[in-house]
Amino acid sequence: MRALERVDYVHGGTALTGLLARPAETPRAAIVIYPTIANVNAHMERRAGMLADAGYLAMIADFYGVAEGDWPALAQDLRVDTAHYRARLAAAVVALRAVPQASGLAMGAIGYCMGGGAALEAARDGQDLRAVASFHGLLETGKAAEPGAIKARILVCHGDADPMVPRGHVLGFWDEMGAAGANWHFHSYSGVKHGFTDPGSDARGLPEIAYDASADRQSWTAMLGLFDEVFGRK
Amino acid sequence: MRALERVDYVHGGTALTGLLARPAETPRAAIVIYPTIANVNAHMERRAGMLADAGYLAMIADFYGVAEGDWPALAQDLRVDTAHYRARLAAAVVALRAVPQASGLAMGAIGYCMGGGAALEAARDGQDLRAVASFHGLLETGKAAEPGAIKARILVCHGDADPMVPRGHVLGFWDEMGAAGANWHFHSYSGVKHGFTDPGSDARGLPEIAYDASADRQSWTAMLGLFDEVFGRK
Repeated sequence: MRALERVDYVHGGTALTGLLARPAETPRAAIVIYPTIANVNAHMERRAGMLADAGYLAMIADFYGVAEGDWPALAQDLRVDTAHYRARLAAAVVALRAVPQASGLAMGAIGYCMGGGAALEAARDGQDLRAVASFHGLLETGKAAEPGAIKARILVCHGDADPMVPRGHVLGFWDEMGAAGANWHFHSYSGVKHGFTDPGSDARGLPEIAYDASADRQSWTAMLGLFDEVFGRK
Repeated sequence: MRALERVDYVHGGTALTGLLARPAETPRAAIVIYPTIANVNAHMERRAGMLADAGYLAMIADFYGVAEGDWPALAQDLRVDTAHYRARLAAAVVALRAVPQASGLAMGAIGYCMGGGAALEAARDGQDLRAVASFHGLLETGKAAEPGAIKARILVCHGDADPMVPRGHVLGFWDEMGAAGANWHFHSYSGVKHGFTDPGSDARGLPEIAYDASADRQSWTAMLGLFDEVFGRK
């Protein structure tokens, strides 16, 4: 796995550490990766490398500023105030924007599980992102998007058998995005559970999560296809 | 546009004419293209050429065996008996299978509008297809798929603003496919109407249809991505 560079940034008095992957050539765009509830791990670092291999300058955001902890409790604290949460997410966009190699680049965001929801929150917040992609992300929000607020093209890659994101959430999301006038593509995969992009999902022994090689492959292809359209071909 | 070859076949006493596009190299698989309600036209011939360019042996099926006619009336007659309709669709699979170059190849099907629904009907019918893709296709059927009947991987590319296929049809399709145990990926595109793959849609002046360049591009990419997975990379 390639070595990632530290990007130090601060939000609300909390010291945060992004992890940056650089492409070999001039980057096509700069992409924030919002990680799962467990913050940075090998799965996220691999994705950063895959984005860099595809020509993108990619930075994994830091949700909490701690290397270990009670993730559900940390996540709950972070998200209890939607405005505070969105500001934490925006700080990662600002931090990546400030990397010298990102100067003048268009930006996007992707995310996984809680981070998929975070990418959507950044879009709702009107961050200057051209495209966001959510992989098995949460769809509910503490604050529905305002009409016209969303600038980003949205891609949601969703497991239809994800117990954490049932069909009612899907329909609610469509309604919310419709009211906001967002431009979204929604991909739903039959029989696919939460965590479908992570080869380590099956080893966790949790009934609601499972790796799905096809959904993983097809969702990544879809993201690259949208990015080709939005950011231009390599 | 490349010249297509005639493939004569017969079903139920009706003489039918498929149109075949051959790739330059050994084909990766053989793909039936079910056309729109208006049967073969330039849009369908272009798609056959695009599939051949991607390495597939592709044949446009013939629904009615007539070059011109009252398409809605012809379509209604053809579909009033679901078993008869499915047999007409199966005849195209048999005809393509009988092309010498198709010998030993895996098969798939795609379709547009009524033809998207036809591709799904062929899957419901248990035809020996590895993958089917529907573009702005009809989702309702005269006969729900039996559990275990569907052999094909299914990709549905759907415009969320298609008045001919409202969300109720989408949810009904998910339920039907779930009961049948099918393996499906469903892509829904916000604000996208019927006929979104056809650059000629806008000129028709019908409020329910419109071309959408992004949905056209992303849905074709999705189909190629699924075909790469199912049939192997070029």
